[in-house]
Amino acid sequence: MRVGVSRERRDGERRVAATPDSVRQLIGLGLEVLIESGAGTAAGHSDQAYADAGAELVAELELDALDVYAHVRPLSPETAARLRRGAVTVGLASPASELPTVRALAAAGVTAFALELVPRISRAQSMDALTSQALIAGYRSVLEAAMRLPRFFPLYMTAAGTIPPASVLVLGAGVAGLQAIGTAKRLGARVSANDVRPASADEVASMGATFISLDLEAAEASGGYAKELGDDRAAMQRALLAPHVAASDVLITTAAIPGRPAPLLVTSQMVAAMRPGSVVIDLAAESGGNVEGTVAGSDVLVPTADGAGTVTLVGLKDAASAMASDASRLYAKNVANLLELMTADGVVAPDFADEVVAGACLTDDGVVRHAPTAAAIEAEGAA
Amino acid sequence: MRVGVSRERRDGERRVAATPDSVRQLIGLGLEVLIESGAGTAAGHSDQAYADAGAELVAELELDALDVYAHVRPLSPETAARLRRGAVTVGLASPASELPTVRALAAAGVTAFALELVPRISRAQSMDALTSQALIAGYRSVLEAAMRLPRFFPLYMTAAGTIPPASVLVLGAGVAGLQAIGTAKRLGARVSANDVRPASADEVASMGATFISLDLEAAEASGGYAKELGDDRAAMQRALLAPHVAASDVLITTAAIPGRPAPLLVTSQMVAAMRPGSVVIDLAAESGGNVEGTVAGSDVLVPTADGAGTVTLVGLKDAASAMASDASRLYAKNVANLLELMTADGVVAPDFADEVVAGACLTDDGVVRHAPTAAAIEAEGAA
Repeated sequence: MRVGVSRERRDGERRVAATPDSVRQLIGLGLEVLIESGAGTAAGHSDQAYADAGAELVAELELDALDVYAHVRPLSPETAARLRRGAVTVGLASPASELPTVRALAAAGVTAFALELVPRISRAQSMDALTSQALIAGYRSVLEAAMRLPRFFPLYMTAAGTIPPASVLVLGAGVAGLQAIGTAKRLGARVSANDVRPASADEVASMGATFISLDLEAAEASGGYAKELGDDRAAMQRALLAPHVAASDVLITTAAIPGRPAPLLVTSQMVAAMRPGSVVIDLAAESGGNVEGTVAGSDVLVPTADGAGTVTLVGLKDAASAMASDASRLYAKNVANLLELMTADGVVAPDFADEVVAGACLTDDGVVRHAPTAAAIEAEGAA
Repeated sequence: MRVGVSRERRDGERRVAATPDSVRQLIGLGLEVLIESGAGTAAGHSDQAYADAGAELVAELELDALDVYAHVRPLSPETAARLRRGAVTVGLASPASELPTVRALAAAGVTAFALELVPRISRAQSMDALTSQALIAGYRSVLEAAMRLPRFFPLYMTAAGTIPPASVLVLGAGVAGLQAIGTAKRLGARVSANDVRPASADEVASMGATFISLDLEAAEASGGYAKELGDDRAAMQRALLAPHVAASDVLITTAAIPGRPAPLLVTSQMVAAMRPGSVVIDLAAESGGNVEGTVAGSDVLVPTADGAGTVTLVGLKDAASAMASDASRLYAKNVANLLELMTADGVVAPDFADEVVAGACLTDDGVVRHAPTAAAIEAEGAA
């Protein structure tokens, strides 16, 4: 069967859905691999490296001749419509926000797998692209903060006096948050963190950071994700966080709720109460932001309440793509592992009796299989 | 006596020669301190903070009414000419490259102290601005590299496979180089280093990095600085370094020779032999560069020899200024400590019997006291 890997078309996207290593894995399964010329350039892989791994290089993929289509960013409805009936796609699909594409995939009879839907169970960890890409975003958020902070992260004892370590506060202690905590600790900062999920206190402590207890009702949904707080609780959460935010040199926010806009954790007033020169990195900027006033892809200078300077509010965007080489290495492996799960004797044949395959499937045979997405499409049709 | 602190005029300069803390120190010595309004803004210090520390804020300093003038960047000849006879200046002076200013300082009868000339002895460490600012440049060089590298610095063991740590090579293991080594180690990279001074092998090892022995004749001058290699030796050094450069993900060069252009350690060919996506940070860019093709203040993309991508060559500039808050904290302390050494009963009166005072003095009473600079001016006059 023919697996096609496209050159990503979206502006600023530098990742690729296969590396020479993952090509070898796919070929080992008995699959043919076609790579669009230049697909790996931004991630550090030449056409020659793919050819050496056994892939066929093509100027442009003929979509209707593919059995499997591997991609990074969600497809456009036009691309989805050009796939043949029964073709399998594997990639990120952002089902909550890309309903037109979901409709197009269903209409084309495509069997589409959304990596966002891979169940969070041990057996599927090696296919979990949300986790692998969040690892990168968390690491990178600390670099972005350190570059903008006019201060050191570590403690320094010098002949001209002692410089105290920077104070870093991380809100949201999922994969990205824990990674941010670990990286900030590595760099020598004093780190504290908060999350609405009670299980996170131990995880935060195990990374060497201080967990901030807010005395709020816990909010944990299935799969280890956070659930939304009611309005009252959310306001109380902000009030309790305010003094911790004001005392930080760096604030990193990573709170996301799958399929919903990001929760507002930090108001403009809380940002303005920070010291001049402080830095806020909002990792949730692309889904609305955890911080009031965030602009995805931009730095916003927020004047401090004391009139002495500004706080830099960074709406982080494409964080994983900025480290395209390692991001692609992990992503391509996630894609290949999911395909491996569905392949036997050189044939990709999804078995919906497998909970990972069933859970990750977005559309199949004209049907939207993911219930929340099907409901969203129905609601849209009724409106 | 009246000490004036200016708002720095040079584009991109964000540091300031006094902080509220150092103002308190100077006032404690019985000095008056005048601060130009806005002088500390970019370093995070409001006018109010200086006023609270006891300084007088002025819209613009009246230079001819000052007894002491503290600054960061070398003065212009015009500024030097406006100072009164017998006034004391303390700041960076770049005597090797700013001869017109040195002449103007001498002509005005100014007693000018150049922080670059502070002797490298234990007692003067707290006044050594080259060291304090190099600390910042070394730390920052690693952040600049990590931001541009499409890979992680640390080792990661993930469900989607193991990512090996990045390999970092540091050339020049002075203050900045050792700090780069320490910071790259903190971030989890595999670090090796080389320096022409034999003493550096132990220092490199003590930071947890691998010292690369090149089997070259040692080259150490007085004061712990490196001396220039002959042409043959320099070519051999490059040949021996080439395989180490090619094997690195990140190369950081920090080799400087006081008063001389930076030595060329790495040719374009050596850069082109690195892997696609690799990053080179040239900390010596402002003094000519250790790497062929460096442009101070710019990123240059160098195509790799294998045609598969590019290496990013960064001519780092104003590295300390980019971390203006901590850079100013240390710099201001250096300035205040040197002034404290020269002050008794509220009077700044340099005692040239003190080797630190004598060593740091550039001009006094119409005479250029620093012999190499005096010789350079004489040579220029004779030409």
